[in-house]
Amino acid sequence: MDDVDTPAPAAPRPSVHPRQGLPEAVRIYEVGPRDGLQAEKVIIDTAVKLELVQRLERAGMTTIELTSFVPPRWVPQLADAENLMAAHAPREGVRYPVLVPNLKGLARAKAAGAREIAVVVSSTEAFAKANFANTIDGALDNAVAVVEAARADGLPVRGYVSMAFGDPWEGAVAPEMPARMAAALSAAGCTSISLGDTIGVGTAGQVADVVGAAVAAGTSLEALALHFHDTYGQALSNVLAGLEAGVTEFDASAGGLGGCPYARSATGNLATEDLVWLLEGLGYDTGIDLDALVATSTWMAGQLGRAPVSRVVRALAQDVR
Amino acid sequence: MDDVDTPAPAAPRPSVHPRQGLPEAVRIYEVGPRDGLQAEKVIIDTAVKLELVQRLERAGMTTIELTSFVPPRWVPQLADAENLMAAHAPREGVRYPVLVPNLKGLARAKAAGAREIAVVVSSTEAFAKANFANTIDGALDNAVAVVEAARADGLPVRGYVSMAFGDPWEGAVAPEMPARMAAALSAAGCTSISLGDTIGVGTAGQVADVVGAAVAAGTSLEALALHFHDTYGQALSNVLAGLEAGVTEFDASAGGLGGCPYARSATGNLATEDLVWLLEGLGYDTGIDLDALVATSTWMAGQLGRAPVSRVVRALAQDVR
Repeated sequence: MDDVDTPAPAAPRPSVHPRQGLPEAVRIYEVGPRDGLQAEKVIIDTAVKLELVQRLERAGMTTIELTSFVPPRWVPQLADAENLMAAHAPREGVRYPVLVPNLKGLARAKAAGAREIAVVVSSTEAFAKANFANTIDGALDNAVAVVEAARADGLPVRGYVSMAFGDPWEGAVAPEMPARMAAALSAAGCTSISLGDTIGVGTAGQVADVVGAAVAAGTSLEALALHFHDTYGQALSNVLAGLEAGVTEFDASAGGLGGCPYARSATGNLATEDLVWLLEGLGYDTGIDLDALVATSTWMAGQLGRAPVSRVVRALAQDVR
Repeated sequence: MDDVDTPAPAAPRPSVHPRQGLPEAVRIYEVGPRDGLQAEKVIIDTAVKLELVQRLERAGMTTIELTSFVPPRWVPQLADAENLMAAHAPREGVRYPVLVPNLKGLARAKAAGAREIAVVVSSTEAFAKANFANTIDGALDNAVAVVEAARADGLPVRGYVSMAFGDPWEGAVAPEMPARMAAALSAAGCTSISLGDTIGVGTAGQVADVVGAAVAAGTSLEALALHFHDTYGQALSNVLAGLEAGVTEFDASAGGLGGCPYARSATGNLATEDLVWLLEGLGYDTGIDLDALVATSTWMAGQLGRAPVSRVVRALAQDVR
C-alpha cells in the first residue's frame, strides 16, 4: 500500500526521544581520513585529503584521526603523511591523532608536528602474525615502547585493540583477550582505549561482555571507546549496546569510508552520518552539521568513484547540495 | 594497519552472547514477497515469486506475507495475486498472510484460499490522504470493517499501523497517534499489530516511547510487532530497542527487498539476514539457514538486476553458492 507519488520534503531529521540510563554526553572520533582511506582501493591526492579534513572540521568534527606513519610500502594510501601534515593547519579545539606502528613511525610523526598518537595491538595470534609479523605479546611490547616514548614527550596516546570481537582466521575471540590488551595499554599510559570489531561480526550482547571484561581487567569505563565496522549491519545496534554499557566515545568514518578486506565486502567502518542520526534521536547534541557532512561524503564518494555506503548519505544525498 | 592479504575462511558467524532482560523467544515475520516486491521497480514473474517463496520456506521462514489483493492499478507489482496463490502449495506449519485494502480485496483473498489477512491504517492525516484518499478515521473504519468480516469467517487478522515513527509530509508523529490506531485495531479483533516506521526515521529512544504508548492505550505487548525500514541505518538498533521493550515479533525482508519511495533511497525494509545475525548472536534459535537465505537473496537480486542491499548478503554472498 506504500505507494504515493507526492515527493517528500527535503532533509528529514530524527525526532528526539531521550532514553533513560545512557551517558550524559558522548564523543565521535572520526577515523575516515586514516582508517577509512587506508582501506580504499583508490589512492587519494594529498590536496583532496586536505579538503576532506577541512570539510570535516567545518561540519563540526572535534577529533579527526589524520593519517598514519606506517611504512609507505605497507599502506601506500597514506604514504603522503608528512605532506598532509605540512599542508594542514590545525584548527583550534580540534584534536588530530595520527597512527604510528613503531618508534621510527613515532619519530616521523613528531617531526611532522603530531600532538597526539595512536597505536594498535591485536587480540589474536593470527592477526598479530598477519598484520605485525609478531606474536600478540611481541606486538604489545612494541606498542608499549611507543606509548612510553610518546608519554615521555607529553603526547597523549590512544590504543586500538584489534579483532576484539572476532577474528577472520580464529573465529570467536574470548572477551578476556581484548581485556588483557586494554589493561596493558592502560597501565602503559594510554588515555583512551578503542576496542575494535575489525571485521564487524560482533552483536549487541557481546558488546556488554567485551566492555565488562575490559573494565573488570582494569581499564576505566571513561577511557573506553568502541570501534565498529558495519560489515554485517550490526554497527549501530552495537553502538546502542555500548551506550547502555556506559561507553562515551565511538569511532566512525564519514560516509562509511573504508572497505573490509577480510570479509570482501564494500561495507567497512560505521558511517558517521548514521551514528549522528542515532545520537541526535537520543537527544545528544553532537555539534555536527549533518547536511554539511552528507555533502562532504557525497563529494568524497565522487573522488573514490563509487556510491557512498552510508544509509543516511544515500537517503539524504539528493536533498543536500 | 588493517591490511592483510590472507583470505578469510568462508561463512563467518556471530559469537553467541545472550543478554539479560530480553524476551525468551522471538518470531521473524517475512514481508519480502509483499512489502518488498511492491516497492521494487521491476515487475517480477509469478514463477519467480513462487520460487522465492519456496526458497524462503526451505530457508526456514515460518511466516511469509505472500501478496496483496489491492487493485492492480494501485500496485501492478502484485497484480498476479490470484495466480501466485493458485500456483503455491502451502507448507505445513507455515503461515501465509495476505494484505487486503477493503472488503472487495477480502472477497478476492478468500476466493483465492487465504487463511490469514492483514490490513493497513495510517498514523497521520497526510499519509491517509495520500495512500487511502481518506482521513485517518475513515481509513480506520474501512480497516475495521475488513477485520470484522474476516474474523466472522474465522480468519486471523494482523493490523499494520503505518507512519508510526514519522511522516514524510508531517514530520514528527506523536506516539499517541499509532497507539490510538493500535488500540482500535486490537479492539476490532486483530491478533497482531505491527507498528511501522514506514520511512525509517525512528531511533532507539523513540521505540520505547512508541511501544510504551501503544501498551498504555490498551494493546497487549504480546500482540505487538515492529516493522522497521533501514533508510537511515537505524533498523537494527531499533530492533534491539524493541527487544529491550519486550516486543517478540519483527518484520523483515529477505535481502532487504523493497526500496523507499518517500526517501528516494535504495535502502528499504530491514534485511532478514541482518536481523538473523543479531538474533543468533543474542542466542535466539531463529531456525533460519543463513546460507540458504543469503543464496536466495543473491539470486533474487539477480532477478531484479541490482546488488542486494543487505549487509550480511553483501559480505557473505561470495562465500555462499
